[in-house]
Amino acid sequence: MRTKITIVLLALLTNASFAQTDSAMIKKIFNEALSNGKSYSNLDYLTNKIGGRLSGSPQAQQAVDWAFKAMKEAGADTVFLQECMVPHWVRGEKEVGKVISTGGKGVKDVPICALGGSIGTPAEGITAQVIEVNGIEELEKIGKEKIQGKIVFFNQPMDPTFIKTFNAYGKAVKQRWGGASEAVKFGALAVVVRSMTLTQDDNPHTGSMGYKDSLNKIPACAISTNAANWLSTYLKTDKELKFYLKMTCQTLPDEKSYNVVGEIWGAEKKNEYIVVGGHLDSWDTGKGAHDDGAGVVQSIEVLRIFKAMGIKPKCSIRAVAFMNEENGGRGGDKYAEMALLKKEKHIAAMESDAGGFTPRGFSSDAKPEIKAKLKKWKPLLEPYGLYDFDGDGGGADIGPLEKQGVPLIGLSPDSQRYFDYHHTPIDVLDAVNKRELEMGAASMAALIWLISVYGL
Amino acid sequence: MRTKITIVLLALLTNASFAQTDSAMIKKIFNEALSNGKSYSNLDYLTNKIGGRLSGSPQAQQAVDWAFKAMKEAGADTVFLQECMVPHWVRGEKEVGKVISTGGKGVKDVPICALGGSIGTPAEGITAQVIEVNGIEELEKIGKEKIQGKIVFFNQPMDPTFIKTFNAYGKAVKQRWGGASEAVKFGALAVVVRSMTLTQDDNPHTGSMGYKDSLNKIPACAISTNAANWLSTYLKTDKELKFYLKMTCQTLPDEKSYNVVGEIWGAEKKNEYIVVGGHLDSWDTGKGAHDDGAGVVQSIEVLRIFKAMGIKPKCSIRAVAFMNEENGGRGGDKYAEMALLKKEKHIAAMESDAGGFTPRGFSSDAKPEIKAKLKKWKPLLEPYGLYDFDGDGGGADIGPLEKQGVPLIGLSPDSQRYFDYHHTPIDVLDAVNKRELEMGAASMAALIWLISVYGL
Repeated sequence: MRTKITIVLLALLTNASFAQTDSAMIKKIFNEALSNGKSYSNLDYLTNKIGGRLSGSPQAQQAVDWAFKAMKEAGADTVFLQECMVPHWVRGEKEVGKVISTGGKGVKDVPICALGGSIGTPAEGITAQVIEVNGIEELEKIGKEKIQGKIVFFNQPMDPTFIKTFNAYGKAVKQRWGGASEAVKFGALAVVVRSMTLTQDDNPHTGSMGYKDSLNKIPACAISTNAANWLSTYLKTDKELKFYLKMTCQTLPDEKSYNVVGEIWGAEKKNEYIVVGGHLDSWDTGKGAHDDGAGVVQSIEVLRIFKAMGIKPKCSIRAVAFMNEENGGRGGDKYAEMALLKKEKHIAAMESDAGGFTPRGFSSDAKPEIKAKLKKWKPLLEPYGLYDFDGDGGGADIGPLEKQGVPLIGLSPDSQRYFDYHHTPIDVLDAVNKRELEMGAASMAALIWLISVYGL
Repeated sequence: MRTKITIVLLALLTNASFAQTDSAMIKKIFNEALSNGKSYSNLDYLTNKIGGRLSGSPQAQQAVDWAFKAMKEAGADTVFLQECMVPHWVRGEKEVGKVISTGGKGVKDVPICALGGSIGTPAEGITAQVIEVNGIEELEKIGKEKIQGKIVFFNQPMDPTFIKTFNAYGKAVKQRWGGASEAVKFGALAVVVRSMTLTQDDNPHTGSMGYKDSLNKIPACAISTNAANWLSTYLKTDKELKFYLKMTCQTLPDEKSYNVVGEIWGAEKKNEYIVVGGHLDSWDTGKGAHDDGAGVVQSIEVLRIFKAMGIKPKCSIRAVAFMNEENGGRGGDKYAEMALLKKEKHIAAMESDAGGFTPRGFSSDAKPEIKAKLKKWKPLLEPYGLYDFDGDGGGADIGPLEKQGVPLIGLSPDSQRYFDYHHTPIDVLDAVNKRELEMGAASMAALIWLISVYGL
């Protein structure tokens, strides 16, 4: 039995004891990010000099030019663009929403915003009675007779009891994405959707929606959680109240745009890659600070940290500022397409697209043995608050690489505040804490360094 | 060997498998806090209806009255006050600070704030040359000749490379607390101290300072980190520039004040207590939201959660709103004194005084076997993001109970943002996220519930 016990002991030790140099290196990476970090000043530029940058907009092109320059400044050995065609949806004039009480005696303005991808209304707007439903599933129960000719008000709140708020989002967001096409089956004229947030505030949260090709298209907009609660209460006393909405949003022909790719060349395996990225496009209503300026500047910061510390990785490290995550995912598709075409070997792909908050761990989409390997590094990373390696998921932009067998990794920041800002006018630099952002960048650099040394 | 291996396996299992009812109960506690929580609305009242509440001020008394009522409303079986005399320091008129270039050609206003406990300046203020030092240790090196008759500018920054910002604070704060008494030994006329924060901003951060009885007292004030950097740079080009400060702060006779104690009676051991608290007083410059309105409302929320869920703990649970943590600690002393006098058995004492941020674990001051017991509950609490049970420390208000052998426990929230707000005008409700605050309250309630069931 001696051998077996020795094996058990060795297994236990391996899990807890790493080379001192590994932990010293990780400490240095965090020191560099927290002492000399450039992620916050980069985010300042991206959000305040460029601002919101919806795919196809002039700001999106400015962001491409900026990212190219920022990657160069971070010390990338080469920076190049990957051309891709992106959807070009425009919001048009400020949307108008009103609630009109029965008989038209009371009219109240309600701030709305078009969901991304929605068609506009006729020039005179749409006025119709409102029927409230608690999510898509309720449509069937209520039935066509009661829905026909009305505006469907999707009012399913996010569930506050999920600890990870993304789980609450995942459950409720179907009504935003698919509500219009589901409601039109029952004869609805338009849909008004409760904002995807756990706060009670006055911001309508935009976000993407889609139509089913076989069905008619009807306009879709969001209202704030405060307005949704008010409307729901009001509907109980005035069941025949009407909603008016006017939107001039439309989808123009696709535009040419780009992923921006910055590369540090590997010393031994130049043609093998670890990719780290975030998405450069954002919604137009805010400035895309957490979503996903944070992920872009953190990815660029990974390059800067490697260069500033004189780390010469064995394989190449690529930072990618992906285009068009919000309403198309064309940049992610293009990156994977090019990787396949060029037969590039990707060791791993990492994404940061959950906000610039204090990092708490990494999620992954990978084989169990690779997930286990990631988790084995937990003792090295837990001193930096990275304790959670169990979650699933990589990121929308790196997702298309999964088919090529690339292990996908997502940074998991603390999620409590994310949906306060998500897709709203308050997703601005002030909502991001400098140290939290830097801690995320350092965490990404540390894990990428481990993968570059030990493989995955 | 079979027996030994079985023991090893059992030990491993014990660590990971708890009664399903325990984890179900903890889930219910979090659900209650996140769905029906009152901590945020209580904090709204405390910060916005009462505001800053320095010991001895009318606002501190209003806070006592409010806490009494809030504990009743939370369902406490009894609420009582503990009288204690507290220091009564007042800031007086808005402080004035100026930098005067050599020859008096340039004068620039510099916002300053008196450190709590400082004496004022003479009516005409103090004007003197400035000598910059990088912390107390440098005074000796520079020597009396160069310091005599000058204003000492303590400019040791907090070290950004500490992951837990409280460690950086602990290292740098000596210059704020003891700088005046150290500098006066070398003949200084006053001290100006760099704010204790890792951000670069324009807020001078107040905080307590003390004098040594045997030494002369000189005025002490804080300047913002931006102003400190600017002053340091300016001193390099104009070595003889002068600083002017005028402050009318003073210490009045002690005032009568109170701890507020709310109690849920134990079903089996009414005379054994688990205490949970925060401090009710705050600095006057802000509204004491994170420091430590958060800890007070979370402690009251623990009572509310127990009552709302119909939990009847075996021992009694006390929420304490301690008075005078910031500049005296008299409330904490009084509580321990009364516990000793009444021979009360305290099973444990917990404090929340590190801000209303996402909780990450619990620190403790306790015997190793008790620390180990706390850590054994980690598998039950980690699903809620509580992974860090290794830190030392309980809290300043519960500290005096240590002599009586009471295990002390501190909530450890994420610390990245804490010193952005600490002791400044921006420590207001808007700096607190509702869910993060609620997560802290739920974490406290969960651990207190475990202790109430299993002891410590």
